[in-house]
Amino acid sequence: MIRIGIVGATGYAGAELVRILSGHPDASLTVLTSRQYAGQPFEKIYPAFKGLVGLNCEAYDTDQICSQTDVVFLALPHKLPMAFAPDLLKNGKKVIDLSADFRFSDPVKYEAVYQPHTSKDLFSQSVYGLSEVFFDQIKNADLIGNPGCYPTSVILPLYPLLKDGLIDVSTIIADSKSGASGAGRSLSLTTHICEISESFKAYKVTGHRHKPEMDEVLTGAAGQSVDITFIPHLLPMSRGMESTIYASLKKRVTPEYIYNCLAEFYSDCPFIRLYDHGIATDTANVRGTNFCDIGFFLEKDKNRIVMMSVIDNLVKGAAGQAVQNMNIMLGLDETAGLNIMPYPI
Amino acid sequence: MIRIGIVGATGYAGAELVRILSGHPDASLTVLTSRQYAGQPFEKIYPAFKGLVGLNCEAYDTDQICSQTDVVFLALPHKLPMAFAPDLLKNGKKVIDLSADFRFSDPVKYEAVYQPHTSKDLFSQSVYGLSEVFFDQIKNADLIGNPGCYPTSVILPLYPLLKDGLIDVSTIIADSKSGASGAGRSLSLTTHICEISESFKAYKVTGHRHKPEMDEVLTGAAGQSVDITFIPHLLPMSRGMESTIYASLKKRVTPEYIYNCLAEFYSDCPFIRLYDHGIATDTANVRGTNFCDIGFFLEKDKNRIVMMSVIDNLVKGAAGQAVQNMNIMLGLDETAGLNIMPYPI
Amino acid sequence: MIRIGIVGATGYAGAELVRILSGHPDASLTVLTSRQYAGQPFEKIYPAFKGLVGLNCEAYDTDQICSQTDVVFLALPHKLPMAFAPDLLKNGKKVIDLSADFRFSDPVKYEAVYQPHTSKDLFSQSVYGLSEVFFDQIKNADLIGNPGCYPTSVILPLYPLLKDGLIDVSTIIADSKSGASGAGRSLSLTTHICEISESFKAYKVTGHRHKPEMDEVLTGAAGQSVDITFIPHLLPMSRGMESTIYASLKKRVTPEYIYNCLAEFYSDCPFIRLYDHGIATDTANVRGTNFCDIGFFLEKDKNRIVMMSVIDNLVKGAAGQAVQNMNIMLGLDETAGLNIMPYPI
Amino acid sequence: MIRIGIVGATGYAGAELVRILSGHPDASLTVLTSRQYAGQPFEKIYPAFKGLVGLNCEAYDTDQICSQTDVVFLALPHKLPMAFAPDLLKNGKKVIDLSADFRFSDPVKYEAVYQPHTSKDLFSQSVYGLSEVFFDQIKNADLIGNPGCYPTSVILPLYPLLKDGLIDVSTIIADSKSGASGAGRSLSLTTHICEISESFKAYKVTGHRHKPEMDEVLTGAAGQSVDITFIPHLLPMSRGMESTIYASLKKRVTPEYIYNCLAEFYSDCPFIRLYDHGIATDTANVRGTNFCDIGFFLEKDKNRIVMMSVIDNLVKGAAGQAVQNMNIMLGLDETAGLNIMPYPI
Repeated sequence: MIRIGIVGATGYAGAELVRILSGHPDASLTVLTSRQYAGQPFEKIYPAFKGLVGLNCEAYDTDQICSQTDVVFLALPHKLPMAFAPDLLKNGKKVIDLSADFRFSDPVKYEAVYQPHTSKDLFSQSVYGLSEVFFDQIKNADLIGNPGCYPTSVILPLYPLLKDGLIDVSTIIADSKSGASGAGRSLSLTTHICEISESFKAYKVTGHRHKPEMDEVLTGAAGQSVDITFIPHLLPMSRGMESTIYASLKKRVTPEYIYNCLAEFYSDCPFIRLYDHGIATDTANVRGTNFCDIGFFLEKDKNRIVMMSVIDNLVKGAAGQAVQNMNIMLGLDETAGLNIMPYPI
Repeated sequence: MIRIGIVGATGYAGAELVRILSGHPDASLTVLTSRQYAGQPFEKIYPAFKGLVGLNCEAYDTDQICSQTDVVFLALPHKLPMAFAPDLLKNGKKVIDLSADFRFSDPVKYEAVYQPHTSKDLFSQSVYGLSEVFFDQIKNADLIGNPGCYPTSVILPLYPLLKDGLIDVSTIIADSKSGASGAGRSLSLTTHICEISESFKAYKVTGHRHKPEMDEVLTGAAGQSVDITFIPHLLPMSRGMESTIYASLKKRVTPEYIYNCLAEFYSDCPFIRLYDHGIATDTANVRGTNFCDIGFFLEKDKNRIVMMSVIDNLVKGAAGQAVQNMNIMLGLDETAGLNIMPYPI
Repeated sequence: MIRIGIVGATGYAGAELVRILSGHPDASLTVLTSRQYAGQPFEKIYPAFKGLVGLNCEAYDTDQICSQTDVVFLALPHKLPMAFAPDLLKNGKKVIDLSADFRFSDPVKYEAVYQPHTSKDLFSQSVYGLSEVFFDQIKNADLIGNPGCYPTSVILPLYPLLKDGLIDVSTIIADSKSGASGAGRSLSLTTHICEISESFKAYKVTGHRHKPEMDEVLTGAAGQSVDITFIPHLLPMSRGMESTIYASLKKRVTPEYIYNCLAEFYSDCPFIRLYDHGIATDTANVRGTNFCDIGFFLEKDKNRIVMMSVIDNLVKGAAGQAVQNMNIMLGLDETAGLNIMPYPI
Repeated sequence: MIRIGIVGATGYAGAELVRILSGHPDASLTVLTSRQYAGQPFEKIYPAFKGLVGLNCEAYDTDQICSQTDVVFLALPHKLPMAFAPDLLKNGKKVIDLSADFRFSDPVKYEAVYQPHTSKDLFSQSVYGLSEVFFDQIKNADLIGNPGCYPTSVILPLYPLLKDGLIDVSTIIADSKSGASGAGRSLSLTTHICEISESFKAYKVTGHRHKPEMDEVLTGAAGQSVDITFIPHLLPMSRGMESTIYASLKKRVTPEYIYNCLAEFYSDCPFIRLYDHGIATDTANVRGTNFCDIGFFLEKDKNRIVMMSVIDNLVKGAAGQAVQNMNIMLGLDETAGLNIMPYPI
């Protein structure tokens, strides 16, 4: 069994890793860390796991984690992972970081939106963990920068069409909507039920930190500089993310052309489900799963495409994709531990 | 007191009219009709109004309604109002129709999306009841086609900028999100709590009937043909509608220019609240009220504007705007009965 | 116009006072205080009130509040009101305290559940503001201890039957359920949407501080010591409280007897709505209003009564009843400012 | 592989059976029937299962189902199963009926609340499928009457204490609350999001059909006639059921005594989780799982016990318990297919 450490196990992404990895056939949880709850049984923090997860939360200790794990997931706020990763890698651990610290290939871009980076030397070996797109690089990686939830939902539908050269990159608009679990477990008025229920709003309209992350990957796909318009919105619900993406096409094509372009690109991808032309996606269809469902509609008169993608922001948007990346890194079945049936109701 | 009849009083728009008009200082409810509940006390259908609304629901009877009312609100599915309106108008009633039957100025456009129209002769006298925009025509009207909720939320932010010639009309995209009450009280899996809670989805992506309504009015504003991209989405909540609108600008302007353009156009409008540049709107801020809050953000690099508008789909998007139109038609204070404080929580 | 000060105006009860009193025909808000937001416009904290409430939040200042108000509402955590009330009363202000500080007639009982009381001398003049029950005392009071939400919902249905001697007091059980706004605006995992949505639970099963408050008033009604079983539960919603109350009867009676007992006791009470035997109440029917709806069902075989009561915890359970008490104290129409239509949807 | 037929596969209980059994290591779905959707792919009705469930819905055909299945789950409204079961049993199928048709041991009691029973001869062989309580009988059964959700949540906490003779049966009160999925997928105003969100209410206060079912089983446990007070309530959420149960004790005991009484009775039961004295349960802790969590609190002064139990009404309250019963009937591991991690958020 692969021995797993989860650093920051009591946040929502961390707890989702615990949930998923508890059912993984080849993995065994050995270390859970939590600054806030060190010394307490994990099942006391999450009573749902009473009798299911026997570990205690512990303070982070490099020596202990290096001796007791093979793979380490860092489910921490950015800035901490860049401090922990070097020692873990030196000790031969595989590291999957769910923060932004290792998502960028250009440190300048990282520092423009976050803060100074103290482990820039690792940029050359870190791989952006968008599993379907960077599968080959992930296979050989020791350090993964696991993608943000918004970038996952925006890049997956666009990537094949950008590669194909179909899209006028100056016209890309992503109108994204996220459930509240994306904001994490730390307390904020934003996620107080009285403030969020029966409420819908855009937020960070002047600039969300996930946008440069998207732009960098989309630029790579397009082979030219991409600077999209991205507006995130907050949904009155816990789990689920939808992106409706608009773009003008550079040439006239049929819906079949688009369907095929997507279907071919994702032909071996168990977690991508492609919808027929004109069929809308629904976050409920992917709830609790690692799926990304993609739909599209071609406005022929305007030669504009509307794409829709849905993910569970905590699964494909965080913990699920992280486990998928671990599977790929270790040569396991890509779906191991992730064959979770959805809960549409 | 002005005597009021509400035809179709037990649907959500009808019940909202009852709620608002019960508190109107110059109006008195005299007739409530309902096909389904004829003969039953209104407060039996809506126990919330126990002791507050004493009327019974009645079957629709032209003679009775003509003898007992001065103003008639038609809160019915389209097709019925075109049959009822002629007799009401002949008898000197003011008619405010909340369906689509009298929203179009061109019957061909109506018939393209709905069905054959049997009262086309009334098109010349019907006025589109977007209160702030068509105030002067409404003042002298006897027949109002009360706007759809989506058109209200999309047209209000765009109208002044189109009038100003600022917007490249070929680039307009409206990504709109509606609470479930917009689908009405009739039963559907779509509004079953188990299907809609923790769910978010686009719907009618290949064409919603509110789009031609918007296009016609926006075309009037722009002085050139407008054919926007419009994608409606369903929110897991009851009340509230948000539209995030994207468009490229034809010239470089400052945020102040845009703010002033909107502020001047709506200078005498008590129900329009304009937000400073970069501040997002929130449906919770207008819940239960007749307000339309408008925000915007200028992406300078791309010379693209992002506008956000929020309304309560049952109030400014239906019953509230209908009452506002009645006030204007009768020369009353525009806000009479509509000074409702919001319920942000 | 009566000049109103609200101390603690940015909490949920405080903001609800602002909402209600903004529409009061005889009152005018003059001072709003907030420790956290002193110096900021109230409408910045609650953008819903943009353009509707022009006041700034201020730090609490005794001299200022005494010179600028006639009535002061204290919407603060317990312990603070006992420090502020003496000066306000000395300066001739009417004081309505929404905390527990002046709800008890016996300081020993207060101190057993809260903390030492520093203004015990005021207990002789403070009146428990359960408006319908203590109307006559409230009329002449200068200091009101406004009831807790749970006590309001539990005492109102029981009081008349206890007065009547009908109930075996040793059998009273109140199973109460509250919306999350009862927990206030301060941050807690309990009200994080991800923890509360799709969740239902009892809490404080070993003792909630509202229980001694109920017991004291119910004891007064029964003329014998009452010690009920009270279990509060948390609902996945914002507003609304329901109590289902169980008790054995000391004699055999008909449903009519019970209906009449309640109807007579509340014959002049505009905010009590009594349901026919066997009809259940619904929190949605009182949402946004000051109503308490009461239903009941008699289990003849077991001679046990089941009562149901619903209130909006922020209105009749807090701010609305406070305004009702102000109206009574000042000899105004009891319903002034409180003729709010419900929002059943 | 055991071949499984699900009759009524598109209702919520049926779809939940599909979800659970799709992950069962020893079972394989072979027939799904649906009156409404016969001929359509199951994944078209539930797009969440796109790519996961390949079967089409079919009309019910006795011959076909007998030749293609070993175990048949009937997820139908009552009255239909009594017509289908005889043929299935004659053909050697194991039958698990999720309706009320085979839950009673006394046909008179069944007919008093439902309708005439046309297969009374099967009562002698049908077993009430409360897995933990009737394990031994289930092991040898061919026909299971799978318990109602309310009875499951009410009987499980009470049964051991009644067996022990601890409880004064005349004092039992169950105040139960259910998520809306218990009402099923058929359309009703009750489950319209606009009517149920921000709403809480008791319903069927004059008599719910699950009460006689509870009374019969509790009577068996107590060895004397039990006639409890049972009031169901509707929660503004999809999944989850809580029962708060009150009863007076016949003798003075300690919390440890009660804990041990429950712990011993359920010592070999993988799906019962017992909480320490004074700790409340939460429906979120069992969401998506087959667990029944039980908590309790002893009011020493009054010698009254308060018990709390939570289940997922669609899993332990319906489909999960049905699969558990299948496992027991077939001698499989009781937990096969049911090792589902909960989704606390």
